[in-house]
Amino acid sequence: MTRVDGRTADQLRPVKITRGWLDHAEGSVLVEFGRTRVLCAASVTEGVPRWRRDSGLGWVTAEYAMLPRATNSRSDRESVKGRIGGRTMEISRLVGRSLRAVVDYAALGENTIVLDCDVLQADGGTRTAAITGAYVALVDAVRYLEGRGSVKGQALVDSVSAVSVGIVDGAPLLDLCYEEDVRADTDMNVVMTGDGRFVEVQGTAEREPFDRKLLDSLLELSATGCAELARAQAEALAQDLPAGPRR
Amino acid sequence: MTRVDGRTADQLRPVKITRGWLDHAEGSVLVEFGRTRVLCAASVTEGVPRWRRDSGLGWVTAEYAMLPRATNSRSDRESVKGRIGGRTMEISRLVGRSLRAVVDYAALGENTIVLDCDVLQADGGTRTAAITGAYVALVDAVRYLEGRGSVKGQALVDSVSAVSVGIVDGAPLLDLCYEEDVRADTDMNVVMTGDGRFVEVQGTAEREPFDRKLLDSLLELSATGCAELARAQAEALAQDLPAGPRR
Amino acid sequence: MTRVDGRTADQLRPVKITRGWLDHAEGSVLVEFGRTRVLCAASVTEGVPRWRRDSGLGWVTAEYAMLPRATNSRSDRESVKGRIGGRTMEISRLVGRSLRAVVDYAALGENTIVLDCDVLQADGGTRTAAITGAYVALVDAVRYLEGRGSVKGQALVDSVSAVSVGIVDGAPLLDLCYEEDVRADTDMNVVMTGDGRFVEVQGTAEREPFDRKLLDSLLELSATGCAELARAQAEALAQDLPAGPRR
Amino acid sequence: MTRVDGRTADQLRPVKITRGWLDHAEGSVLVEFGRTRVLCAASVTEGVPRWRRDSGLGWVTAEYAMLPRATNSRSDRESVKGRIGGRTMEISRLVGRSLRAVVDYAALGENTIVLDCDVLQADGGTRTAAITGAYVALVDAVRYLEGRGSVKGQALVDSVSAVSVGIVDGAPLLDLCYEEDVRADTDMNVVMTGDGRFVEVQGTAEREPFDRKLLDSLLELSATGCAELARAQAEALAQDLPAGPRR
Amino acid sequence: MTRVDGRTADQLRPVKITRGWLDHAEGSVLVEFGRTRVLCAASVTEGVPRWRRDSGLGWVTAEYAMLPRATNSRSDRESVKGRIGGRTMEISRLVGRSLRAVVDYAALGENTIVLDCDVLQADGGTRTAAITGAYVALVDAVRYLEGRGSVKGQALVDSVSAVSVGIVDGAPLLDLCYEEDVRADTDMNVVMTGDGRFVEVQGTAEREPFDRKLLDSLLELSATGCAELARAQAEALAQDLPAGPRR
Amino acid sequence: MTRVDGRTADQLRPVKITRGWLDHAEGSVLVEFGRTRVLCAASVTEGVPRWRRDSGLGWVTAEYAMLPRATNSRSDRESVKGRIGGRTMEISRLVGRSLRAVVDYAALGENTIVLDCDVLQADGGTRTAAITGAYVALVDAVRYLEGRGSVKGQALVDSVSAVSVGIVDGAPLLDLCYEEDVRADTDMNVVMTGDGRFVEVQGTAEREPFDRKLLDSLLELSATGCAELARAQAEALAQDLPAGPRR
Repeated sequence: MTRVDGRTADQLRPVKITRGWLDHAEGSVLVEFGRTRVLCAASVTEGVPRWRRDSGLGWVTAEYAMLPRATNSRSDRESVKGRIGGRTMEISRLVGRSLRAVVDYAALGENTIVLDCDVLQADGGTRTAAITGAYVALVDAVRYLEGRGSVKGQALVDSVSAVSVGIVDGAPLLDLCYEEDVRADTDMNVVMTGDGRFVEVQGTAEREPFDRKLLDSLLELSATGCAELARAQAEALAQDLPAGPRR
Repeated sequence: MTRVDGRTADQLRPVKITRGWLDHAEGSVLVEFGRTRVLCAASVTEGVPRWRRDSGLGWVTAEYAMLPRATNSRSDRESVKGRIGGRTMEISRLVGRSLRAVVDYAALGENTIVLDCDVLQADGGTRTAAITGAYVALVDAVRYLEGRGSVKGQALVDSVSAVSVGIVDGAPLLDLCYEEDVRADTDMNVVMTGDGRFVEVQGTAEREPFDRKLLDSLLELSATGCAELARAQAEALAQDLPAGPRR
Repeated sequence: MTRVDGRTADQLRPVKITRGWLDHAEGSVLVEFGRTRVLCAASVTEGVPRWRRDSGLGWVTAEYAMLPRATNSRSDRESVKGRIGGRTMEISRLVGRSLRAVVDYAALGENTIVLDCDVLQADGGTRTAAITGAYVALVDAVRYLEGRGSVKGQALVDSVSAVSVGIVDGAPLLDLCYEEDVRADTDMNVVMTGDGRFVEVQGTAEREPFDRKLLDSLLELSATGCAELARAQAEALAQDLPAGPRR
Repeated sequence: MTRVDGRTADQLRPVKITRGWLDHAEGSVLVEFGRTRVLCAASVTEGVPRWRRDSGLGWVTAEYAMLPRATNSRSDRESVKGRIGGRTMEISRLVGRSLRAVVDYAALGENTIVLDCDVLQADGGTRTAAITGAYVALVDAVRYLEGRGSVKGQALVDSVSAVSVGIVDGAPLLDLCYEEDVRADTDMNVVMTGDGRFVEVQGTAEREPFDRKLLDSLLELSATGCAELARAQAEALAQDLPAGPRR
Repeated sequence: MTRVDGRTADQLRPVKITRGWLDHAEGSVLVEFGRTRVLCAASVTEGVPRWRRDSGLGWVTAEYAMLPRATNSRSDRESVKGRIGGRTMEISRLVGRSLRAVVDYAALGENTIVLDCDVLQADGGTRTAAITGAYVALVDAVRYLEGRGSVKGQALVDSVSAVSVGIVDGAPLLDLCYEEDVRADTDMNVVMTGDGRFVEVQGTAEREPFDRKLLDSLLELSATGCAELARAQAEALAQDLPAGPRR
Repeated sequence: MTRVDGRTADQLRPVKITRGWLDHAEGSVLVEFGRTRVLCAASVTEGVPRWRRDSGLGWVTAEYAMLPRATNSRSDRESVKGRIGGRTMEISRLVGRSLRAVVDYAALGENTIVLDCDVLQADGGTRTAAITGAYVALVDAVRYLEGRGSVKGQALVDSVSAVSVGIVDGAPLLDLCYEEDVRADTDMNVVMTGDGRFVEVQGTAEREPFDRKLLDSLLELSATGCAELARAQAEALAQDLPAGPRR
C-alpha cells in the first residue's frame, strides 16, 4: 500500500526543528512535521503561581492555539468568540502534562516556564508536533536559566516526544497527515520519554471500535516514531544556537 | 494487598443503576459506583442541529458537570465563573464520543438525544460512571422513541461502559476511588463495547512514566471491569421501568 | 373545587425532608414538595469574605440553580451559555436573604456557610422548597460548627420556611404545582419565621391586578402553610442524622 | 417625628415629570423623585421578537441601569465587568412586568416598545421612579403609534405607578430617600394601577422580620403614594408635548 | 454654501457647558454641542492603581459610553451584550489620553480621577464634546482636591478641547452634525491644548483619500474651533459653581 | 545624529515581503520591517455578511493579533482572558479601513476577503507592517478570484501602505523601532495610497503636545516612507508566486 504522500506505513513525514526562531523568547522552535508548522516559544519568569509559592518547586505549563488560517478554511478566532473551545483546552492540558513528565521541579527551583505552541499551518499531527517542538524550546529555556545559575542540577530528567498513529483502511499508519486523519477508523496520540516509556496514550475509535490486536500494533508503531523523533530532537540540540540579540 | 475499602485489586465498587429516577426525562438513571453518584438524564428532541439537517441522520451528544458540593471541599460554579473549565469540556466530549460509538444514526433518524450527566457526589471515577449510566438512560430514550414509532430498526448496535484503572504503589487496581486516584502513578480510563472492543483508551502518567508491561496489565484489568459493568447494565435494563407520569 | 392533584385549597403537597443525603457536605438535605425535588448542601469554610474580615461576624449566602432536565423540556446550561439568567440570580438572592434573617452573625463568628440549592426536578415552588430545605441543612452545618466549638451561643435565632400561594380561577390556593402556577392570575411567595413574622412577601399579578381583599386572603393562606412547614422542619431535625463518613 | 428632609411620614418628595427630554425617542421622560433622577426612553420598533411572531400581539419590555457616578461613590460599569448584576436584572424584570400589566397586546398589534430607564442620579427609590416615569414615556410612544394609525383601539388599559415604603425606627414612612433606606428595618416596593389595584408587592425584612400589622400599615401608605403619583402622571400627560425634530 | 442647520463652514454649533449637574460627583458637566448632549462626571478617589503605587504620581482615566436611545434608532446595551465594542474602547482611550496631556501627575499626587462621559443624546461630535466637557469636570475635581489640600501646586498645566472637522462635497466644515458626518469624505478629530498645540490628530478617509492641501485646510479649521471652545471652557469655569449638597 | 540601529532619520528598516508563506490561504505574506515580523493571510469566501447581501458589493475586513511571546515579556492570550483589548480592536479596525480605501466593491462582487494579521515578533511598527503586508496578500487573493473569473474588472483601485513616524529627542524619525517608540514624544501612523494621498493620519502626543511645524515635518517624512514601501510592494508582486499545493 502506498500512502497519499508516497510514504511507507511506518515512515514519519520530514521533520524539521529550527531553534532560535524568535529573538525575545528564552527558547523558541519552529517545528515542522511535513506541512504542519508550529511555533513553540518558551517564556521564563522568576517565581511560581500563588498556589505553589514557598515550595521551592518550579512550574511548567503550556498553551496551544491555532491561527485562524492555519487550516484549509478559515476558523473564527477564540479571542473574538470570547471563549476557548474544548479542543484547544484539551490539547493545552495535554502538552503541559507531557512536558511536566520530564521536569524535576526541585532542580528547576521557583521558576516558571510557559510554552506557547501556536500552529501556523495545520496538516494533521499538530499536537504531537507541538509536544516534540516544545520540548526542544524547553531545553533552551532551561539552558538559559543554567547560564544565569538559576537552576540546581538537572532540571530535565529525560526527553519527551509525541506522534500520532491510526488505522486507515484496516492498516496501522504512523504520523497521519490531515487527509489520512479524516479517513482513519482509529486515531491515537502517544507521548513517550527518550527511554521508551509512555507518558500518555490516547486512542479513540472514530468509527469502528478496535480490538486488542490492532491496539498492540498501534503501540508498537508509535514507539518506532517516538524513538526517531527523540533522535531528531537530540540532533537539533547538538547544534549551536544561532546568535541573536539576547544570546 | 488490601485496598482502602477492603476490595481486591480486580474488584469493582458496588454498582447500582436506578432507572426512571426523574419524571420528565425520556430516560434517566441514578448510577452509583460506591459513593460516586451521577444523575444521567436523556432528553429527546425531534430534529437535529443545523449542520446535520436533511441528512436523515440523528445526533447524540452529552454534557457533564459537577454540583459545587459533590466534592470534599466546595468548588465554584462554572455558571458563576462564566466559563466552563477544561476538565468539564474534556469529559463532556468523552462521554458524547463514547455513546456515539454504539449509535446507528440512520436508524435513529433525525432525532437528537442529549445526555446530561450531573455528578451529585464524587468519589473517583465520575466520568466512567457517567458513561456507564448514560448508556442505560440512552437505551430508555431510544425505547421511548421506539414506542412512538420514531426509529427505523436498531438505533443502538451494542452497549458501552467505562471503568478506570491505575497503578498504585506499583500494583494495577480496578475502579479507583478518590483516595486511590490521588495516589496513583498512572491513571487510565477505558471505554469498551459490550463485545469487548475498545472505544477509548486514555492513560496518563501522573508521576512516573509507565512501560509496556504495566500498560498491558491495565488493559486486561479494564476489560474485566467493563465486562462486569456490561452485565450490570443488562440486568438493570431487563427490569420493568417504574411507572411514572410520562410512562 | 378540587385541585388537579386532588388537594384542598389550603393543603400542602406531601413534604419530605431527607437529611444527610450527601457524604461530604457539613449539612445536606433532599427536600421534596410533591414532585419538586431540591438538593440543599451547606458548606462551611473558616473565615469570611474580604469585605467582612476582622468584624467578628460570620456570613451566610446561597446559590440556586436548576439541572437542565429538571423541567418538562430541557433548558440550556447557564455554564454553557456563559451567563446566569435573571431568574437564577433573583432566586439565589432571595434564598440568601431569607436565611440571613434568622442568623446571629456575632454568634456564628468569622465562619462562612454557603447553601447550594440545586433543583433536581421541578414541579412548581422550587424557590420555596429551596428555602425550606436550606434552613434544615443550615441547622446541620451550625451543629457541625457547634460540635467543633466554633460558635459562641445561638447562631440561629429562629427557623425560616417559605411557601407559594396564588389565585387560580378566582380562588386562593396554597403551594401551587406547575400546572396551577401557569394558570394563576396572581402568584405570591411568602417567607416566614417560625414565630409567624414575615421575612419576604413577593406578590405579582401575572394577568389581572389584584385588590386588597385577595391580597389579605393570600397572606392568611401563606401563614397556614409556613406554620405547617415549620413543624415538618422541626420533626426532621428531631431525628438522628444517619451515620456517614464525616459523622 | 420629622424626617431627614423635613417631610411628614406620608409625604412624597417633590415629583417632577419632564416629557420630550430626548429628540430621537418616540417617548421620553426625565422623572425626578427629589434628587433621584431617571431618564426614561421609549423606543418603538415594528414587529415583535421571534417567539411572538404572527400572534397579532405586541410586546413591551424594559431595561434598567445606573450611570457609574449616579451614586455617592463611583461603581464599575457593568459593560466593563462584562456581566450584569443581579440587582440590575431584577429591577429590569420588575419594570417590564409592571408596565405589561396595563398593556392590551392585541390593541398594540405586532409592535415592540422598549423602555430604557437610566438612573442619572440616585437618592433612593430609583426603581419606583423608573416605573412611574416609564409609564409616561410609554403613553407618548403609544400616542406616536396612534398618530401613525398603527394601533387598534386602546393599547393601555390603565395607568401604573410605583412607590417605596418602609419602616424606619418603628414608623412607616412613604417614599424613602437613600439615607432613610439604609436605616430601614423593612423595605417595600409597591406597584399599583390607576384604579388602585396591586401589580406587585415586594416587601423585605432588612433587619427585623415584620408582623401583619406593620405590613398592613405599609400597604395603606403605599396606596396613598401611588394615587398621588397617578395624579402627577395625568397632569404631565395633559400638557402639550414640547415641539421637537420628530414631533 | 449653506449647511443643513444654516451655519457657515467655520461655525461651531451652540455650545453649552453646565457645571454641577450632579450632586454626588466631585466635578460634573452637562456639555451640549447643538443637540449632542454628554454628561461628564469626575470621580476622585484617594490612591492610584496597583501598578502606580508608591510613585508619588496621580492617575487620570476616562470611560465613554452611549445610552441605548441616544441615537436615532435604539442600539443594544454593551452590558447586555457582555462585551464593549471597539468604537467605545477607542473613544474611551482617546478621551483619557487627551486629558492626561495636560495633567501634572506629581502635582496631582497619589489621587485618581475617573472621567465618565455618558452620551445622553448623539448628533455627531460626541467624542469631541466629551473631551471638551470632561476637561471642565476635571478642573472642578482638581479644585475639590485643592480645597482639601490634597494637591501640591498646579495639577493641570493647560486646558484641552476637541473638535471634529470634515470634507463634505469638497468643502472643509467645522464641527459636523450627524447628517454631515455620514456624508463626509474625510472625517477628522483634533484635540488641542489651550496654547494651540496638538494632542491628537485623527483623520480618516471615509470615501476618497485626501491630499495634503485638504489636510492643511482641515488642520486650520480645527485650530479655530478649538480656540473658541477653549474660550467657552474658560467662561464656564469663571462662574460660581451652583450650591449643592456636597459644595 | 545616529539612531540605535545606525539608520539615518529618514531611513526605513530592511523590508522583506515573502509571498505564499502559507499553503492554504488564497493570499499570504510574511512581512518583516527589521525584526518586526507579521504573518498576513487573506481568506476568500463566497458571499458577504448578512447586512450586505443582494447589494452586488463585496466586503473586506481584517483582524490583528499578537502571539503571546511576540514581545519582550510574555503577555496573556486574549482568548484566555475572554475579551479582546482596546488596542487590538483599534488596530484591527485601522487595518480593515485602510485596505477598504483601495477596494472597488462593485468589481469585487459578492465575495468577502478576511485579512488575518498575526504578529509573530514585535519590534515597533506592527500595525504599519500589517497594513503593508496585508495589501500584498489582498492582491494575491484578488488574483486568485480573477483566476476563477469571480471578479468584474479592477477590484483594487490603488495600492496602500503605512509607516510610523515620531519625534524622538526633538528630531523627526521614520519607521520607529520599539526602543525609539518608547522614547518618542509624539508618535504618528500614516496610511497612504500609491498615488500619495492620505487614507489615515493618527498622531498622538505621548508626552509633549506638538506644534504645526513638527506636524508638517512628520507628514513629509511619512510620505517618503510610504512611497518607498509602495515600491517594495510592487517589486514583491512582480515576482512569480512560488508553486504550492493550491497554486
